[in-house]
Amino acid sequence: MHLENLLKQIDFIKEIDKVKYIQRKTKLFNSNRNENDAEHSWHLAVMAIVLAEHSNASIDILKVIKMVLIHDIVEIDAGDTFIYDTQKNHSNTDEERLAANRIFGLLPKKQSEELIEIWEEFEAGLTEEAKFAKAMDRLEPLLQNSSNNGGTWNEFDVSYSNVYEKKKVIDEGSKIIWKFAEKLINESVDKGILKKD
Amino acid sequence: MHLENLLKQIDFIKEIDKVKYIQRKTKLFNSNRNENDAEHSWHLAVMAIVLAEHSNASIDILKVIKMVLIHDIVEIDAGDTFIYDTQKNHSNTDEERLAANRIFGLLPKKQSEELIEIWEEFEAGLTEEAKFAKAMDRLEPLLQNSSNNGGTWNEFDVSYSNVYEKKKVIDEGSKIIWKFAEKLINESVDKGILKKD
Repeated sequence: MHLENLLKQIDFIKEIDKVKYIQRKTKLFNSNRNENDAEHSWHLAVMAIVLAEHSNASIDILKVIKMVLIHDIVEIDAGDTFIYDTQKNHSNTDEERLAANRIFGLLPKKQSEELIEIWEEFEAGLTEEAKFAKAMDRLEPLLQNSSNNGGTWNEFDVSYSNVYEKKKVIDEGSKIIWKFAEKLINESVDKGILKKD
Repeated sequence: MHLENLLKQIDFIKEIDKVKYIQRKTKLFNSNRNENDAEHSWHLAVMAIVLAEHSNASIDILKVIKMVLIHDIVEIDAGDTFIYDTQKNHSNTDEERLAANRIFGLLPKKQSEELIEIWEEFEAGLTEEAKFAKAMDRLEPLLQNSSNNGGTWNEFDVSYSNVYEKKKVIDEGSKIIWKFAEKLINESVDKGILKKD
């Protein structure tokens, strides 16, 4: 039983190596190099650890960390969706659900069910843990773009109201982080690296 | 106070982006592309989550995850040390200690102290959490090299006894994972991708 589980887990561990090849649109800080999903997920996990004290509500930080570590694994099959892409639906597409079933399905049944549940909880964004995890997911590219002279905002012609709209969900996870983020967005307009509509 | 902490944490979050540029010797699975420290740390964290049931002892999995997520941050200043490098000391050099103080020192004092303590606990390798975290750190490159036709073993002329010696610490974290790892090492010799001394 132990060995049987272990062999399934090793298959999963090998499969998720592919996350390291999935390129995001955003670039590393002060850089022209695209970030990949593994780097992104690592960064969010460390951010969640150091920023947890700012959560609006009391949270199970272990669950938040699990959420951010696994949230992009479905992209192995479904691909990365750019947050400002207006053509594609962003949350929990059929494609992503199939991907979750296939990839987490490599694990022993109970573990697979637990991780799919955590992924769905993140996607739904309704629990305090999901709200905080999503705040991390929105904050990182904001820090990147504002340190990259506008980054993807300029590259893909994204305007202030698009950014503000997408980022304001940070408020649901942390009011203090949202206050900081809002200031950063406004300063980006002042600096001319984010255009007002 | 909250804002003061947040600004320090943001500085830390920006600084650790550099972990994404630190190249390891090992390559991704079935690949020629070197892995970087951020990808490696992400992989270890997910591995710790899915493999926790195999730990010899009861462990605080949150602490293990923190350990593997931050264990390579000191390499921003101290650089990556190849595990089979016989010229360089591997554990807790003065250089790494200075790096830990500088980088974690960007955080609010209490948080900085907590993370330095966790890093030191990992380095010392004495607690059950550190033993399991180190088992993850040794397992990943073994999986990579055995899937890469020998990978760094061939590239850097590393022999069976070197590998066996370095990997057997996995046993301290998990007997069942070590049994699996030992078999993988022996099979690698049989396949001719790891040479017997």
